[in-house]
Amino acid sequence: MSNSVQPILLNGSWTASAATATFQAVNPATEQPMPQTFPVSPWSEIDAVIGHAARASAEMRGWPGTRFAEFLEAYAAEIELRADLLVETAHAETGLPKSPRLKDGELPRTTNQIRQAAASARSESWRVPTIDTATNIRSMFGALGPVVVFGPNNFPYAYNGIAGGDFAGAIAAGNPVIAKGHPCHPETTRIFGEAVVAAVRATGMPSGLVQLIYRTSHEDGLRLVSDARIGGVGYTGARHTGLKLKAAADAAGKPIYLELSSINPVFMLPGALRERLEKIADEFTGSCLLGAGQFCTNPGLVVVPAGEVGDAFTSLVAEKFRAAAVSTMLAEGVRSSFLKAVGTIVAAGATLVTGGAAGGGKGVCCQNTLMKVSGRQFLTNPLAFQTEAFGNGSLFIHAESTAQMLEIAEHLEGNLTGSIYTDTQGSDDSDYTQIEKILRTRVGRLLNDKMPTGVAVVSSMNHGGPFPATGHPGFTAVGVPASVTRFGMLQSYDAVRQHRLPAVLQDRNPGGVWRRINGEWTQADIG
Amino acid sequence: MSNSVQPILLNGSWTASAATATFQAVNPATEQPMPQTFPVSPWSEIDAVIGHAARASAEMRGWPGTRFAEFLEAYAAEIELRADLLVETAHAETGLPKSPRLKDGELPRTTNQIRQAAASARSESWRVPTIDTATNIRSMFGALGPVVVFGPNNFPYAYNGIAGGDFAGAIAAGNPVIAKGHPCHPETTRIFGEAVVAAVRATGMPSGLVQLIYRTSHEDGLRLVSDARIGGVGYTGARHTGLKLKAAADAAGKPIYLELSSINPVFMLPGALRERLEKIADEFTGSCLLGAGQFCTNPGLVVVPAGEVGDAFTSLVAEKFRAAAVSTMLAEGVRSSFLKAVGTIVAAGATLVTGGAAGGGKGVCCQNTLMKVSGRQFLTNPLAFQTEAFGNGSLFIHAESTAQMLEIAEHLEGNLTGSIYTDTQGSDDSDYTQIEKILRTRVGRLLNDKMPTGVAVVSSMNHGGPFPATGHPGFTAVGVPASVTRFGMLQSYDAVRQHRLPAVLQDRNPGGVWRRINGEWTQADIG
Repeated sequence: MSNSVQPILLNGSWTASAATATFQAVNPATEQPMPQTFPVSPWSEIDAVIGHAARASAEMRGWPGTRFAEFLEAYAAEIELRADLLVETAHAETGLPKSPRLKDGELPRTTNQIRQAAASARSESWRVPTIDTATNIRSMFGALGPVVVFGPNNFPYAYNGIAGGDFAGAIAAGNPVIAKGHPCHPETTRIFGEAVVAAVRATGMPSGLVQLIYRTSHEDGLRLVSDARIGGVGYTGARHTGLKLKAAADAAGKPIYLELSSINPVFMLPGALRERLEKIADEFTGSCLLGAGQFCTNPGLVVVPAGEVGDAFTSLVAEKFRAAAVSTMLAEGVRSSFLKAVGTIVAAGATLVTGGAAGGGKGVCCQNTLMKVSGRQFLTNPLAFQTEAFGNGSLFIHAESTAQMLEIAEHLEGNLTGSIYTDTQGSDDSDYTQIEKILRTRVGRLLNDKMPTGVAVVSSMNHGGPFPATGHPGFTAVGVPASVTRFGMLQSYDAVRQHRLPAVLQDRNPGGVWRRINGEWTQADIG
Repeated sequence: MSNSVQPILLNGSWTASAATATFQAVNPATEQPMPQTFPVSPWSEIDAVIGHAARASAEMRGWPGTRFAEFLEAYAAEIELRADLLVETAHAETGLPKSPRLKDGELPRTTNQIRQAAASARSESWRVPTIDTATNIRSMFGALGPVVVFGPNNFPYAYNGIAGGDFAGAIAAGNPVIAKGHPCHPETTRIFGEAVVAAVRATGMPSGLVQLIYRTSHEDGLRLVSDARIGGVGYTGARHTGLKLKAAADAAGKPIYLELSSINPVFMLPGALRERLEKIADEFTGSCLLGAGQFCTNPGLVVVPAGEVGDAFTSLVAEKFRAAAVSTMLAEGVRSSFLKAVGTIVAAGATLVTGGAAGGGKGVCCQNTLMKVSGRQFLTNPLAFQTEAFGNGSLFIHAESTAQMLEIAEHLEGNLTGSIYTDTQGSDDSDYTQIEKILRTRVGRLLNDKMPTGVAVVSSMNHGGPFPATGHPGFTAVGVPASVTRFGMLQSYDAVRQHRLPAVLQDRNPGGVWRRINGEWTQADIG
């Protein structure tokens, strides 16, 4: 192995990989390979990583949340020290704009997420401490064990396996993390690794707290998530790969939290379009083309009323799509998948209104693409028309009637989000009520008069939804404390002597932790 | 099909089954078949049941919790009206004593569970309403969709698919239930069905709210849990069948909550045995032989110190086992599985201290059985020695040292419970601390100086644990509101107009529902 291959982060030290295979990322704007070479870790190396994670997990059992909070806070600060380098590097690896995306959008969001997770660790809010005084039975969530986090291509910071929401949640819950970087932005990921090393040292955490590998064989990925020493898994990415990991983790009885595909249906009711056609066309165009449409919450399916107002809306959006700049995509693989999906949807019977071909901008890119199909046609093959075209495109369904809109809603797969636009005068209200009833059960987040892109990092966010958007409809990847609690196991203490209880379950509650005692939430002591 | 075959409960009516296969339960005390014949439902019939459940689910979308509370409360009262018949019938079908088990133990527990679930539906506590006022994003858990509940053989009431904790939780969360009765006690289950019919009528609930089938082919069981119209599944029973259902449900992306095998390790530290040998031997004997040991929380594995005190304890327990009455088992299948498991454990190298053969009591039964093995021998094949012998038996491991106890703990599978007995003077405290650190991650409920049988129905109970005791370590089958929330999906509302929000998420909170607003729990209004 050449010395120029980047080391992995093994048990706190940058260590030469035993890899026999390597890879390089490609700058999608220049279509030239990036200078650094990264290893595809063999099983022997992954096995060592798991062993160190398991030892760290054992060492940290029972530690109070403050320890993890201090690490996360130090880590956020170390990230900020490296902000310029992270922005330059991620821009080169992903083609995403430095501003207003990487520098002033995603990076602050990422450190904010890490600090929110830290606050939850400090306040112990994620543990849901629950006490029944009559029986002296007490419960809380405790650490799950080593967590493997797979980051996606489209968020080099906010969902990175070593910096994103799953990472922060797993650490806040007291678990070591084995981060699997995405091969599209390994150098960005490596820089986070440097920030981790500094923060681990500064806060005296175990050297196995955070480890980093860049790539594995598919087989070793499955072996990793089903290893007996692993506590759980977080995965954000393509459906195909995610479902394979899910099958392996499920068979081994390991909790796996997935964020897979989503096309985020939007229902445009006639009153709304009549009332504010231009405004909604602008909102939609902005949301759909933002970041070349490479968002899990990109509005990929829009249901409009057939006839005059729907036709006017489609024409107006097509015009805006043609006039809008074409953004660079993350990688050639994204472009080819996008074009393949567009091909599938057109082959099923959709019409290409505009775009549909590679090019139109700088480097790896595709034309802004709008397709349309009648409601009747959609209903002949609803699954094909729900093929995710991950990129700057969308499919408009022209529905003949409210009844047909309802039928379309009934045929939707599970999605992260669903939006309904209505007028402000009430003419759409009856349709809204009927559509909402169906849509509500098919999406994690329901929006009114609002595009789904832009995921606020607040406690009430649900960045989750029914299968196949995720693997379980009860969990969210964003929103503290729920996103932290996912990485815990429920632990009940029955007649355990007072001094042996975790601090948050003891009678005295000097930290004012919110606890549910005999069914009521309180920050008080017991007795 | 003869007229004498019992009908199924289809969409609110007792309906003749299209079954071509039937079965009868057997009275285990007399070993004679019960008089009633029950159908094995074919797919066409199961398909119709699912269709009615899906329609009921759609009809009930958005209903307030009070509707479900009223049904559950009426149902609990209808059960109590049929108490004598339920006790006579379950006694005949299961061999369980009328008193102090069926009449004054399990039946009151069952109606208590149903009423607790009703209270949670009424208070909306299971929904975890969460509001961020700055962004106007609000979330709560909403109904999941039709839930299939498979009940086990060992609790004809408290875990029955049509009356137990999974049933009550699924209904409280606003879901229809498809109950699959256990073939060991179909007539008991049918009587619950009559109580359901009365309660559904009295409270004006949809006819598809609760339906009942008694048996399916294995293939149709898998098809049922993976049907697109199903929202989730609850299963309590044998590991082998549960894992097949889990694989089918997982592949279809359906949440499945399993309670599988558990052998509930107990660590007896030397100080405790020296301090109160006789008392602990009595506690253990009572717990292990209760109900012929047919409990998920039966103490099936006990770690004692090798040497004098451990030997004395084993001898004393053996004496008590020989002196104790032998209880009738639930069914011939339970006996044969128990004897097979004892055979496996002995074949692996354990010694039979007492018992080990069929007989010793009335009807279907086995001798009270005690086995022992050295710690060294256990560690040669820890999985074989953890074979669940579901019945009135236990395996004692004589560990040479604290270090060996720790090694044994490290090799334990996931269990529902783990107990540690220590003395009151502190001589065991150092051992406790070390063992607890390991045991804590392998069990759902940790006990001090207490046997694991007896599952208190309180909010802080965790009747769950790491795989393979269950399918996910974050959920409990007992303990409201968590056992209800399992059957919900997380639903976020983003910028949804105030009057369109579910009542519990609106600004005004006239019912004083506990809500987490901007991170703080409160019963107040907003604004």
